[in-house]
Amino acid sequence: MSDDTLLERRHRLLGAGAPLFYDRPLHLVRGEGVRVWDSDGRVYLDAYNNVPHVGHCHPHVVGALAAQAGRLNLSTRYLDETILDYAEALTATFDESLSRVALTCSGTEASELALRMARACTGNEGVIVTDFCYHGNSAVIASLSTAYEVPEGRDPRVRTVHVPEADADAAEAAAGVEAAVASLAEAGMRPAAIFFDTIFATEGMPQVPPGYVERAVALTREAGGLYIADEVQPGLGRTGDAMWGHRLYDAVPDLVTLGKPLGNGHPLAGVVSRADLIDEFAGKAMYFNTFGGNPVSCAAGHAVLEVIAQERLMENARRVGARLREGLFALGNRHAAIGAPRGRGLFMGVPFLDEGGVPAPAVTGAAVNGMRERGVLISRTGRHDHVLKIRPPMPFSAADADQLLAALDETLDSLA
Amino acid sequence: MSDDTLLERRHRLLGAGAPLFYDRPLHLVRGEGVRVWDSDGRVYLDAYNNVPHVGHCHPHVVGALAAQAGRLNLSTRYLDETILDYAEALTATFDESLSRVALTCSGTEASELALRMARACTGNEGVIVTDFCYHGNSAVIASLSTAYEVPEGRDPRVRTVHVPEADADAAEAAAGVEAAVASLAEAGMRPAAIFFDTIFATEGMPQVPPGYVERAVALTREAGGLYIADEVQPGLGRTGDAMWGHRLYDAVPDLVTLGKPLGNGHPLAGVVSRADLIDEFAGKAMYFNTFGGNPVSCAAGHAVLEVIAQERLMENARRVGARLREGLFALGNRHAAIGAPRGRGLFMGVPFLDEGGVPAPAVTGAAVNGMRERGVLISRTGRHDHVLKIRPPMPFSAADADQLLAALDETLDSLA
Repeated sequence: MSDDTLLERRHRLLGAGAPLFYDRPLHLVRGEGVRVWDSDGRVYLDAYNNVPHVGHCHPHVVGALAAQAGRLNLSTRYLDETILDYAEALTATFDESLSRVALTCSGTEASELALRMARACTGNEGVIVTDFCYHGNSAVIASLSTAYEVPEGRDPRVRTVHVPEADADAAEAAAGVEAAVASLAEAGMRPAAIFFDTIFATEGMPQVPPGYVERAVALTREAGGLYIADEVQPGLGRTGDAMWGHRLYDAVPDLVTLGKPLGNGHPLAGVVSRADLIDEFAGKAMYFNTFGGNPVSCAAGHAVLEVIAQERLMENARRVGARLREGLFALGNRHAAIGAPRGRGLFMGVPFLDEGGVPAPAVTGAAVNGMRERGVLISRTGRHDHVLKIRPPMPFSAADADQLLAALDETLDSLA
Repeated sequence: MSDDTLLERRHRLLGAGAPLFYDRPLHLVRGEGVRVWDSDGRVYLDAYNNVPHVGHCHPHVVGALAAQAGRLNLSTRYLDETILDYAEALTATFDESLSRVALTCSGTEASELALRMARACTGNEGVIVTDFCYHGNSAVIASLSTAYEVPEGRDPRVRTVHVPEADADAAEAAAGVEAAVASLAEAGMRPAAIFFDTIFATEGMPQVPPGYVERAVALTREAGGLYIADEVQPGLGRTGDAMWGHRLYDAVPDLVTLGKPLGNGHPLAGVVSRADLIDEFAGKAMYFNTFGGNPVSCAAGHAVLEVIAQERLMENARRVGARLREGLFALGNRHAAIGAPRGRGLFMGVPFLDEGGVPAPAVTGAAVNGMRERGVLISRTGRHDHVLKIRPPMPFSAADADQLLAALDETLDSLA
């Protein structure tokens, strides 16, 4: 079937508004490691997809999934060892205060649960988020995800803060949190939580000044709120420096939300929590998630943790990430359109700017399409959609990084 | 590992508040068809779990899942044929006006999306639900799920109606919807939707009088609202009489929510919608679901539809359901505690009453535990928790029904 016919069928069955990548959509049919193949048999280096965290169709994960699916798949209302083995392995990667887990099917469900827990346990209603964030697609979570307009409008219980760049003064920037708390107080509310994606991915990956996150969290706690760390983007060793993004700062979260890469594509997500919070919430609300924590999902999640350790993927992210970073800085010397690269490990952002230093989303868009023509998949992010987003599966090698850098160099030459 | 140790580990890792079945929890390790095995090797007839819809670990579904997981698993931002083949097969089972699909990971996400769509497309805020319903666990959906108290309290945009029993007057009962509309109007609102589980499972499976649903839907539409049919419980042929519960009434929904049995345990759910609603919503909101509609989920969902057709499971539900129903009525003649059985096909409810005709949840609870001792898994439902809930995987045979009836007979003898 031609891609045109496929697109027509898609519009008929899913609607023309369902989001697609690329001006000319890409029809993929197979994946392995860090590479995917389209319907014409063309191969692409995947430098974008973080969901297949340990590599597309990793045999250890697929094997674990298939074996458990053939054995038993039921809800957590029966006793089962699979979820306990996984929960033990997962919580072992966190501070010992974060000892309990509630598993869900999506990052949205994790955000929903964390916020319900924070509100029920603090008795407060307010939420502090950044002014360009994304935490999910349910009504409540979409209404606090400031990167997109929503038909529901902004929730009146939400206040926003601006995430500072590296050269800002941390204490001065954190005054935004004080202002948010004061604004909530004026409306008769106190904060239930501050919600931070600990790598600020949607925000365009600003390198926040040392002390900013710590100060923002302290101010929120003084006002009675909790710290929810959203690890959907930086989690599972992606930064190369730590298993979880929040470990890069000196503040232990009260609740951590997990999503996308957790099951290597299998719908697995969850909340890691202080024991007292999960217990208090269970006393106040009947929370049950039919698919959350089923043994097949847990087998997939556990296999992902095993591959990360066995293949030393965090170390790989640090090593290859450093090479990629160096290469991107070098490209910046050759191409005037490239601003200072940002990010860590295998999560890098490259802003494109015009001659006056103004964000140049048109150039970024052309670069994304040009890279695809050269067999490399990437995307873009940030408030002005001008930051190239490089976020490959974790087994990305030094040779893969070199291929990406060469393709980017060539693409920029062609755009000049 | 002993079950006591397992329970202790579970409390430590998931919290003691995570819901479990049975006074003495059951540790299951294997499933096949309509049977499951515990850690001591004891076999149970599963007459309760609807998630493994076509039978535990059905080889056709497991095979489809494993094959696709080894081929490719990415989001719907790339073109893919798997989702289109599945969407085509799925929508073919609906009225032709319900031509489009948005896939999600859970029934909660389906309820969230349907309600967001209804509110965005009608411009109205109100929701009409029954006074003892369950539609999911997000903040907004939990706040309209009247079967459980929630720490958030009831959403002020929600109005409830009481679902009538078979002997009620349909028009009189539907006046409850008029009252709900009037109450919303007093608060300056109009209904965005009425939300009906079309078999009223949580409500205790009342057999509503003919014309009730139709009249309730018509009144809601006159006031500007849509009809959302929740098919998480009655869907996929369970009633034996129709592929979807709403087909039992003469009213075509505007939106249909799907969940639990859709992927035979794989986290798959979704909304089937009128084309114009899905398109209008896409124009108003950026909705993207990372795992929703991934090719592995779609392969599992499609395999479930294939097994239902190949094994004539809807016909089986009708035939075996009729035998089960007859047997339950016969048991009612032998045991005074049994009220009139209700339900259809392979979804039956059996109320337990005391001598004065008052709900007797203690007897129901004893029966559930007694059935487990006799190797049959069932549960209970309804406002007073007094209705035995019989809802087995669909390949439940006549011999299985006879086993269940014999075990119930024996259990009731032992309780008398």
